[in-house]
Amino acid sequence: MVLDHAPVVSANTRTSINQRAGRAKRGLQALFAPGAVAVVGASRDPTKLGSLILRNIRRSGFPGPVYPINPRARQIQGLPAYPRVTAVPGPVDLAVVVVPRDAVLPVIEDCAARGTLAAIIITAGFRESGPVGAAAEEALVQVARAAGMRILGPNCLGVIDTLTPLNASFAARMPMPNGIALVSQSGALGTAILDWSAARQLGFSKFVSLGNEADITESDLLDLWETDESVRVAAAYLEAIPDGGHFRTAACRFNRRRPLVVLKAGRTEAGARAATSHTGALAGSDAAYAAAFHQTGTLRVDTLEALFDAALAFSTQPLPEGRGLTIVTNAGGPAVVATDAASAEGLTLAPPGERTRQRLRSILPSSASITNPIDILGDADARRYRQVLEVVQADPATGAILTILTPQLKTEVEETAGVIAAARAEESRPIVASFMGGPGVRSGVDLLARSGIPNYPFPERAVGALAALARYADWRRRPPGEVRRFTVDRERVAAVLMEARRQGWSTLDAYHTAAVVAAYGIPVPRGDLARDAEEAARLASAIGFPVVLKVVSPDIIHKSEVGGVRTGLGTAEDVRRAFTEIKAAVSRKVPTARIEGIAVWAMAPPGIETIVGLALDPTFGHLLLFGLGGIHVEILRDVTYRLVPVTDLDAEEMTREIRAAPVLAGTRGQPPADRAAITAVIERVSQLAVDFPVIRELDLNPLIVYPEHHGAVAVDARLTLSV
Amino acid sequence: MVLDHAPVVSANTRTSINQRAGRAKRGLQALFAPGAVAVVGASRDPTKLGSLILRNIRRSGFPGPVYPINPRARQIQGLPAYPRVTAVPGPVDLAVVVVPRDAVLPVIEDCAARGTLAAIIITAGFRESGPVGAAAEEALVQVARAAGMRILGPNCLGVIDTLTPLNASFAARMPMPNGIALVSQSGALGTAILDWSAARQLGFSKFVSLGNEADITESDLLDLWETDESVRVAAAYLEAIPDGGHFRTAACRFNRRRPLVVLKAGRTEAGARAATSHTGALAGSDAAYAAAFHQTGTLRVDTLEALFDAALAFSTQPLPEGRGLTIVTNAGGPAVVATDAASAEGLTLAPPGERTRQRLRSILPSSASITNPIDILGDADARRYRQVLEVVQADPATGAILTILTPQLKTEVEETAGVIAAARAEESRPIVASFMGGPGVRSGVDLLARSGIPNYPFPERAVGALAALARYADWRRRPPGEVRRFTVDRERVAAVLMEARRQGWSTLDAYHTAAVVAAYGIPVPRGDLARDAEEAARLASAIGFPVVLKVVSPDIIHKSEVGGVRTGLGTAEDVRRAFTEIKAAVSRKVPTARIEGIAVWAMAPPGIETIVGLALDPTFGHLLLFGLGGIHVEILRDVTYRLVPVTDLDAEEMTREIRAAPVLAGTRGQPPADRAAITAVIERVSQLAVDFPVIRELDLNPLIVYPEHHGAVAVDARLTLSV
Repeated sequence: MVLDHAPVVSANTRTSINQRAGRAKRGLQALFAPGAVAVVGASRDPTKLGSLILRNIRRSGFPGPVYPINPRARQIQGLPAYPRVTAVPGPVDLAVVVVPRDAVLPVIEDCAARGTLAAIIITAGFRESGPVGAAAEEALVQVARAAGMRILGPNCLGVIDTLTPLNASFAARMPMPNGIALVSQSGALGTAILDWSAARQLGFSKFVSLGNEADITESDLLDLWETDESVRVAAAYLEAIPDGGHFRTAACRFNRRRPLVVLKAGRTEAGARAATSHTGALAGSDAAYAAAFHQTGTLRVDTLEALFDAALAFSTQPLPEGRGLTIVTNAGGPAVVATDAASAEGLTLAPPGERTRQRLRSILPSSASITNPIDILGDADARRYRQVLEVVQADPATGAILTILTPQLKTEVEETAGVIAAARAEESRPIVASFMGGPGVRSGVDLLARSGIPNYPFPERAVGALAALARYADWRRRPPGEVRRFTVDRERVAAVLMEARRQGWSTLDAYHTAAVVAAYGIPVPRGDLARDAEEAARLASAIGFPVVLKVVSPDIIHKSEVGGVRTGLGTAEDVRRAFTEIKAAVSRKVPTARIEGIAVWAMAPPGIETIVGLALDPTFGHLLLFGLGGIHVEILRDVTYRLVPVTDLDAEEMTREIRAAPVLAGTRGQPPADRAAITAVIERVSQLAVDFPVIRELDLNPLIVYPEHHGAVAVDARLTLSV
Repeated sequence: MVLDHAPVVSANTRTSINQRAGRAKRGLQALFAPGAVAVVGASRDPTKLGSLILRNIRRSGFPGPVYPINPRARQIQGLPAYPRVTAVPGPVDLAVVVVPRDAVLPVIEDCAARGTLAAIIITAGFRESGPVGAAAEEALVQVARAAGMRILGPNCLGVIDTLTPLNASFAARMPMPNGIALVSQSGALGTAILDWSAARQLGFSKFVSLGNEADITESDLLDLWETDESVRVAAAYLEAIPDGGHFRTAACRFNRRRPLVVLKAGRTEAGARAATSHTGALAGSDAAYAAAFHQTGTLRVDTLEALFDAALAFSTQPLPEGRGLTIVTNAGGPAVVATDAASAEGLTLAPPGERTRQRLRSILPSSASITNPIDILGDADARRYRQVLEVVQADPATGAILTILTPQLKTEVEETAGVIAAARAEESRPIVASFMGGPGVRSGVDLLARSGIPNYPFPERAVGALAALARYADWRRRPPGEVRRFTVDRERVAAVLMEARRQGWSTLDAYHTAAVVAAYGIPVPRGDLARDAEEAARLASAIGFPVVLKVVSPDIIHKSEVGGVRTGLGTAEDVRRAFTEIKAAVSRKVPTARIEGIAVWAMAPPGIETIVGLALDPTFGHLLLFGLGGIHVEILRDVTYRLVPVTDLDAEEMTREIRAAPVLAGTRGQPPADRAAITAVIERVSQLAVDFPVIRELDLNPLIVYPEHHGAVAVDARLTLSV
């Protein structure tokens, strides 16, 4: 995002900002690795949350001091208890708060007084419960902000860090340590996942239940973890992102170093409704979320299973260099299934090179298939797997490797797992496995888990995880693109919008909209406003025939329907007559309409009709749309979106990723369309949106596009303003 | 399928046919429940297949006599052995053959002589290994057919029937008995699934490894199982269907009584290639498979996991009455995820009625959500689940029920599973569960399994399975439609095609194609063939201006490109000049072309351009295509397919299921198109294909469609014949 003016900040303010930023970051760090923890609301009653959390912290092996806070107890679980946080003798970096709602504010005030860096507020009954709770939540944030203290929650399950180690949550199960950092806007989902992972290969470095996100958000955590070596991949369950701008910056930076995989729930209308009733948060449109994920390199998955399948692969495997996949299998059927999945996911199974084929032929029985999938037959023992893997690994053309095993008569399950583990040791490509079966493959699956090789019970899921690696690696390799700034007539637009505000217009008329659009270098037909028939005829002659006449009135939106439009006027006489007729028709149909005049436009020759649109998303701000016009946008919904500002690469991609893109490339004997003209229009609209946030919607519909080097012209435009 | 003439069969022949059919069916039955079994190639060496299969049969508890056949042993596994099948004292209904390939034929001859009903040939090295094996396989089939004996395989893993019980396979693990019949064209996949199911809720009534399908196919089994009460659902892994016609009949009948769920591998080009290299079978196009599944009510799934998720639901749950879904949950996040999935799958979450809401309000804490999903909060105990389920079940508006549980502090996992099991007892709606987690929910998951309630670890999979039930139930409720026969001029077409054969044409010219099309009642523009300019002018005057002239020549396909087409001719003089110019242009550009004349056509007024096409699929025969013309078919591939013959309902559906269907419904101020005219054309093309199988391809492109009651006209058509 390029700013026109750097913010002007005094040296003093800057120091203070840096101090605050430093403290804010220390607050985040204190969530995961505090020096000392207080449990406010610790209880002697073992069935109470305050007792459970205290026990979880201590059982997790947390190395620092733990202080139970309870005004009515001297000792809890053998530890000396203190009546309030301010009474604790040493520093308290982190407070876990489980007192009733109305007691939370005084606790936070105490924490602030004590210099506590962060508080985890488990207590519920805040924003999610209605306006009273929301006000109480706001009060907490005020106190915390003033003291530079960070808050997680309220209404959350807490935090786990397997490295520290610290389980400051009420999830009883401390997960296996490994590279996945799990962030969840649903606490219950998080605990279910931790429980689920106990029987699987998933290991976590962190788990954060975000709760109401009164202060700390997923974006804060991405900022923190960007440089945290214990985080190999962040997996997030999200229902709504509170600060779209922060997310874009944070996710983009994070993804440049390690991957963020997201399941965004509420992607359908019904799902969004369910999420709203559950969190009270207002979600932006799914198109905006999709654009945000796409533009930040965030990997979006559609199911919980896919989230963890991908996280497992990212947490254990290197990134692939391309989209190649090599399958080694002892059964044909599963390999066909895997090939279908690969094809659907855009992975390619290149046949091995001639030298590799020769070597395979010398190893394998003649009925084996040495193309890719490489079917080493049902009687393959571990030795055959090893020999084939050696050959495949020696071929630089080999892509990511998927080894499929079904338990057959001569299958050596555990030994084959050992072969794969050994193969992985000196391999820079991803290696995953699909040992299919239950008890018959258990020993192999266990060995794979211990060796850091993801195993998927079905080959499609293995392929899905590899495809996630490939998509992310693609993004990492792609140049980031550039937000170009064009020389434009910003003052002109400012003047028009000022006039609009003065007049109280929320929708600009076509004439003023064209002025705005033209000021940003987007071609519009030549045209001007005529007040009488003679002026219209004169303007038409100057513009050149044929022309179009359109009534200009702030009171008329659908001009054609009231007889306010006449096209294809070829002579001055036609223009004069059309002027009179339009005026009469409009006055008759909308007698109250204020008519400013009738605009005379050059008539654009036919070309490919496209649409460039701009809408305002509550989460992410301006969202830009591109597609072909008419039924393509209205019925087929064949459109693509980006958040503003768009880079040159984004704009170019947009013209290529609609389904109807071949139409622009030139088909059925038509020349290729002027794609460069479209991308320039997209980028200029983006610049306009950045410069004038007051613009609510802008539709260039149609933007007629001509053959290469012949440009594009916005023949009609509609602009509305935020009031 | 309506036949014009019933086959004429003499009474004698009919008896013989019935006897053969009876024996063929008894052969199939003998696969699963034979009176006695011989294992030909039984071995004393415990590492040999012949030993393993004998052991599996005996361990499975097969109640009848088992005869080891081995010329060099007197006793095997304590049973008396016989040198050959003919030496066995009693009847041998089923022979399992594991001798080397070249010894198989004499064994089958022995079996034939002994009156054996069926043989399972485990031995490999037949069709899948090349032409020599294919010839050997053919020889086996000849012998078996002559004797009325059925063959499963060769190159298969065998058969399991858990009811008999009989494990005549080399899969070591006998699955749990239940209602799933599993059919697999990949043996290894089948054994992996059986092994996998051991740790899950899946129970099987049958398992059949089809092998090379020299004789018995999946369609035979569907015929057999149509009335088998032990089969609640058939789940099939298929790579290619050998007999498309048989499959259509069998699947359609089967699905009217119980569901068939299919994973068709090789759905992508790469996957199909992998399948071909693995089985040697030639697969038809995926569009034809998709049409066959759709038209027979067969449920197609995309992944192995979805295959078993659906099979589990079908094997335990009743069919739902509609598409409603009611979710009861103790966690918001998983419910949002489930709602998204439901929306994507076309299930609807109707809010409960006012009375139900009142009752829920009286049971639940105020912060619970009583819309649907019904969120009964994280502290829900089993009692709350029970109360809510009772209320929900009492509401006739409730759809299928999904109960989600995450393990939280007060969750009573096992008790809640008990509540669901009890709820199920008197429920006619499907009930499934998603207990999410690992060790923390294990006891509940086990209880659910014992109670016949499918549990899915992720809610999306539960929704996917319920959607499968709903889709199938929809199909069952739908009227089957009717293959209408129109009065047509069949003789005219026969005459044209005879002429084509006489002339050796494989492609008909536009003029003759129009004659064929018109003979089947499909409107074409008025037109006739002119041999000179004067005749053309005379014809044009009779037809009415404007007209189009198109050259007619068997040697020219792309008429426009050689100057062979002129449109919009408004006067006799224009027609004369155009005739001369076309003739000159074509003679100049293609001097060798035989010009039969120049056709004069009435020029059709503009309308909506559509395409109706016909192609020949190697598996299923004629495949009919419908879509909008131009880029819709060529670039957007927005088309829909049906196999011939199509019913009236099929044809009507085709006009509604393309993405661009709203264009036909009338949008942007346009009147609705004449859908009835399109469906009539589709049905007439279908009838044409049925009547004349020699037609290879027919394209009506474009078929211009006019507003309702104004018909449609095929302004250009192309027809090719099989040679």
